[in-house]
Amino acid sequence: MYSFKDDYSELGHEKLLNDLLKLSKIQMDGYGLDSVSSEAKELIKKRFAMTEADVHFISGGTQTNMILCNSALSQIEAVIAADTGHICVHECGTVEHNGNKILTAPNKNGKLSPCDIEMICLSHTDEHMVFPKLVFISQATEKGTVYSKRELKDLFDVCRKFNLYFYIDGARLGTALVSDGIDIKPEDMAQLCDAFYIGGTKNGSPLGEALCIINDKLKERFRYYLKQHGALIAKGALIGSCFKTLFTNDFYFDLARYSNTMAQKIVKAFTDKGYKLSYASGANMIFPILPNEKLAELQKSFKFHIWEKIDDNNTVIRLVCGWATVEDEVNKFIAML
Amino acid sequence: MYSFKDDYSELGHEKLLNDLLKLSKIQMDGYGLDSVSSEAKELIKKRFAMTEADVHFISGGTQTNMILCNSALSQIEAVIAADTGHICVHECGTVEHNGNKILTAPNKNGKLSPCDIEMICLSHTDEHMVFPKLVFISQATEKGTVYSKRELKDLFDVCRKFNLYFYIDGARLGTALVSDGIDIKPEDMAQLCDAFYIGGTKNGSPLGEALCIINDKLKERFRYYLKQHGALIAKGALIGSCFKTLFTNDFYFDLARYSNTMAQKIVKAFTDKGYKLSYASGANMIFPILPNEKLAELQKSFKFHIWEKIDDNNTVIRLVCGWATVEDEVNKFIAML
Amino acid sequence: MYSFKDDYSELGHEKLLNDLLKLSKIQMDGYGLDSVSSEAKELIKKRFAMTEADVHFISGGTQTNMILCNSALSQIEAVIAADTGHICVHECGTVEHNGNKILTAPNKNGKLSPCDIEMICLSHTDEHMVFPKLVFISQATEKGTVYSKRELKDLFDVCRKFNLYFYIDGARLGTALVSDGIDIKPEDMAQLCDAFYIGGTKNGSPLGEALCIINDKLKERFRYYLKQHGALIAKGALIGSCFKTLFTNDFYFDLARYSNTMAQKIVKAFTDKGYKLSYASGANMIFPILPNEKLAELQKSFKFHIWEKIDDNNTVIRLVCGWATVEDEVNKFIAML
Amino acid sequence: MYSFKDDYSELGHEKLLNDLLKLSKIQMDGYGLDSVSSEAKELIKKRFAMTEADVHFISGGTQTNMILCNSALSQIEAVIAADTGHICVHECGTVEHNGNKILTAPNKNGKLSPCDIEMICLSHTDEHMVFPKLVFISQATEKGTVYSKRELKDLFDVCRKFNLYFYIDGARLGTALVSDGIDIKPEDMAQLCDAFYIGGTKNGSPLGEALCIINDKLKERFRYYLKQHGALIAKGALIGSCFKTLFTNDFYFDLARYSNTMAQKIVKAFTDKGYKLSYASGANMIFPILPNEKLAELQKSFKFHIWEKIDDNNTVIRLVCGWATVEDEVNKFIAML
Repeated sequence: MYSFKDDYSELGHEKLLNDLLKLSKIQMDGYGLDSVSSEAKELIKKRFAMTEADVHFISGGTQTNMILCNSALSQIEAVIAADTGHICVHECGTVEHNGNKILTAPNKNGKLSPCDIEMICLSHTDEHMVFPKLVFISQATEKGTVYSKRELKDLFDVCRKFNLYFYIDGARLGTALVSDGIDIKPEDMAQLCDAFYIGGTKNGSPLGEALCIINDKLKERFRYYLKQHGALIAKGALIGSCFKTLFTNDFYFDLARYSNTMAQKIVKAFTDKGYKLSYASGANMIFPILPNEKLAELQKSFKFHIWEKIDDNNTVIRLVCGWATVEDEVNKFIAML
Repeated sequence: MYSFKDDYSELGHEKLLNDLLKLSKIQMDGYGLDSVSSEAKELIKKRFAMTEADVHFISGGTQTNMILCNSALSQIEAVIAADTGHICVHECGTVEHNGNKILTAPNKNGKLSPCDIEMICLSHTDEHMVFPKLVFISQATEKGTVYSKRELKDLFDVCRKFNLYFYIDGARLGTALVSDGIDIKPEDMAQLCDAFYIGGTKNGSPLGEALCIINDKLKERFRYYLKQHGALIAKGALIGSCFKTLFTNDFYFDLARYSNTMAQKIVKAFTDKGYKLSYASGANMIFPILPNEKLAELQKSFKFHIWEKIDDNNTVIRLVCGWATVEDEVNKFIAML
Repeated sequence: MYSFKDDYSELGHEKLLNDLLKLSKIQMDGYGLDSVSSEAKELIKKRFAMTEADVHFISGGTQTNMILCNSALSQIEAVIAADTGHICVHECGTVEHNGNKILTAPNKNGKLSPCDIEMICLSHTDEHMVFPKLVFISQATEKGTVYSKRELKDLFDVCRKFNLYFYIDGARLGTALVSDGIDIKPEDMAQLCDAFYIGGTKNGSPLGEALCIINDKLKERFRYYLKQHGALIAKGALIGSCFKTLFTNDFYFDLARYSNTMAQKIVKAFTDKGYKLSYASGANMIFPILPNEKLAELQKSFKFHIWEKIDDNNTVIRLVCGWATVEDEVNKFIAML
Repeated sequence: MYSFKDDYSELGHEKLLNDLLKLSKIQMDGYGLDSVSSEAKELIKKRFAMTEADVHFISGGTQTNMILCNSALSQIEAVIAADTGHICVHECGTVEHNGNKILTAPNKNGKLSPCDIEMICLSHTDEHMVFPKLVFISQATEKGTVYSKRELKDLFDVCRKFNLYFYIDGARLGTALVSDGIDIKPEDMAQLCDAFYIGGTKNGSPLGEALCIINDKLKERFRYYLKQHGALIAKGALIGSCFKTLFTNDFYFDLARYSNTMAQKIVKAFTDKGYKLSYASGANMIFPILPNEKLAELQKSFKFHIWEKIDDNNTVIRLVCGWATVEDEVNKFIAML
């Protein structure tokens, strides 16, 4: 049965896997110090207009988030995040395992607001409570929504005001940056935060994310943290090469654009048929509301996530399109609506 | 310049990479729940005669060691290891980061003895000191030596006596199990310890180790620990497929045997020329003693690790052969002795 | 200016301090193994009808909570608590520092309900999320309310159903157990939870709480955790003696009763004057609602906590009476209403 | 039976306990913010000539060491200590529980040397190993020996060279500073390290140590760490008052001098009788070597620690004198030699 469950169900684009094959027997320096990884880092720094950034390749998103948080924070410092934040719910308490509390605010369509941050900072005033130090958001969010440039700027401003680090989880940064109506270019990113990561796993790579550290304070001895958390893989070129391929001729954004096109095709079909969507998403993750009978019918032919029941008759589902989504299956799905 | 520095300098055997390519667009369940990983686990369980074992694929050795230790131990419990143990020195304090002390004993040729364990247990008797609970060794050791069946049995016996878990780091288990004079078969392993891992990274795989848990007490909720430590990679088939290829027709041991053959060819050349070796190793990591002039000469054409100076005129070097070692380069190296 | 801010503003009852003086030069075993501490433990076990319990004296509430949680939980396990729980807000993230996430539910008058627990357990179903394992409540709660016997039983039942530990923070257990309308006797406590602590600091002792562990699973090697967290004080008799004095002739409950009497005298005065109370509390911590002018007037003569604004004209304040509350000051305060 | 086991067997000097009694009913600010604690801090800062230091009162030595280390170090940083260091052996792995590795060097009479530190720093050069950042010593050491001013200066110099913090555990600082032949005055201490603590527990106080932080970098948000580790006791005046009494008219050093006098009286008796001492100690902890028959005889009348067997016939014992040591018992002991 065809699945719209996720954008990481297929191993990886053959272009990336073919480039790996070429490296099979080449002797390279270990632990990410190889020349292929260096080339990949240069490509990324150029594309995102951040000459001074440090780029590190890390195997997955949870690992990236946990290491960035652990290296940025002392044990009495805390993270601020929306209650839907991936680190709050779906990373098995890794931030807490490493010693830091997460202070949450109720999300609005998956987003955190400057006001949430301000309220948390103002109410944490003495040593009986933790000290807020880092703001975590996801772009796109866990609900598929995308922050505008203005929204990111406002968040970054309030972070500066309270001396907080601003970190963006970019598991789906690719699809966010080519989403409908987005006013943020890749080259803007380094101006909008202290650190962010460029998701590979959900955009065609068999493995890996590219963590980009802009703020010098977050750079120091970062490789120690990679090693301590078991993230300094011996054959760093495995991820390096994939990102080199992805950022050669903007292939990364071609894949992301394809994902969005497929998802938006489904959005249009839903809208045309008169269905509503739970949150407006211009990227690759959509949340249509379905009557339960229609839901049951679709489940016979397709796999997808049940998100939440909204009343006795209607349910929100989550559909995700990716670089490997088969257009024929999209068409079949639409035909069933 | 050709390198004998390590057995993980090349990305991975083309057979494994080719098999990955075949999976490029196949939809699979995420986080290691795919059928390819399941097949790989079955192959391993069969080959090692351990039907009841739990097998988990993890991206690297440090990660595997840290998660096994963290899941096995409460915060007041400690690890016992030889002072040369990889976890003691070269994992950037990951065991301690996760809260556990390592109690060390001086190594003998890289090995830990039952007597070391007994002495540590007998001297840790009250709540002012940590509670020893897990013994860590490497097979082959960090000095290339290999424990015999008798030695492992004796270690396991003393562990049983003091109610300690016995865990074996098998980063180089492949070459150990086909090393000269070894009396341990793969199917013996599960009888000799509570958990061990089968190293992929140092034996032809671009990524990954296979952790095998024998003792039921260590199995419970292990996937939670994988997730919490960022080790549950989204595309688990990446490692699963590599191990499937490695354990189809014993390809894993073919590669290991080749590594040993190359290394022992060098050993023989050294011995023939009258050079001594620092530790007797029948596997793929060797430690010859060289006069400093010869060392300088070899360094012009080859890369390898300087291990330690033994006197003003002589130095121990470390040479490692692997699945990708080029025999012509071995011959050139020998010719220079 | 006289303070109604807290029940721990005065060092401790002279009876306890005098008994300490008698021990000045007596040689005793260290680290809580002295005979005075043993006698105190026996008195407590007898009074609470829990022959098999383990009792440990610990210097403060935060320390007691953190050690109990840390010893009870593995790193992937989580605490469930009301969002007002002391451990959630006012212990500077100590539970998280030790590696565990706290899952919170919105409080109802400071209380957690069985339904909250059930919902959290049912929504935490796989390894992407932490594993709920311990329920934390306070008796009396942070809002001065007191759980009834039925309420505790229901909570304990749902804990048993989901295999969770049930732990009660008794910083103000004394005043709770003698509060108006309470149907729980000291000798019921051990039937209602897995562990609880009897607060000394807030009931006349210069230092210390008595942690009582009922469930055998929580007893093992507990002194190791005390030591590891720096809680095994060298002169354990310091706390032991205080609890011996407190539990000789039920002096502990005499002090608590006095605290409640003073507080309820104020409650009556407020009610008589037509003021409302924010939460119904029959113990020693009360939350009257005051018009802002009255508030300003009282602040000129007394110290107390401003709890929260409810509208432009009215504010909730917190008043606490203790063993050392001076009745004359209570009378003066009442006279100003 | 009279005990020479420790200097903390008796609860505390009556002068201190009497002063506590006077505070019984006085309302004071909580958590160490009371005026008595402030006065005590001023007395200490004056006596040690360190106007700019931060002083914190903490209940015990293990707690003090663990919090100082945890607040000073990030997770990838490590402590350097002699293998006999209290934190290495007798604090139940608290430094490791909080995430930091301890790198040890073999002690020489309980001491660490500048050369040990240098060797450890020079061999820790990349991210595969932890990053050394803090040096821990005890003054007096765990073997009763005392560092000279020159020795402390040399240690501090090498710390400066490698950018390490230098921290001194002063559980027995009192007796060290009045020991035979000492050339360090209290007012020198702040020039010789980044932080140290003045032990109260082992010098007449029922509870508490005074941590003195000299280096500004170690001061920031220290009270958060106190709270997070459960060390911010509600009634801070309990320790504050004891230190106020101890540092009024140098009573602290009077007590320490008495402890040394008693111990040195025993030393003289041993020497006069021709017995040897294992380490030269001019303070209050001594390690005579006894023939086993004499040992057995003394054990019938006195309690003390058996330290180690040196051969079949002779054993090292540990004797400790304190502020409460009864001179008559010392005389009886001597008479038995």
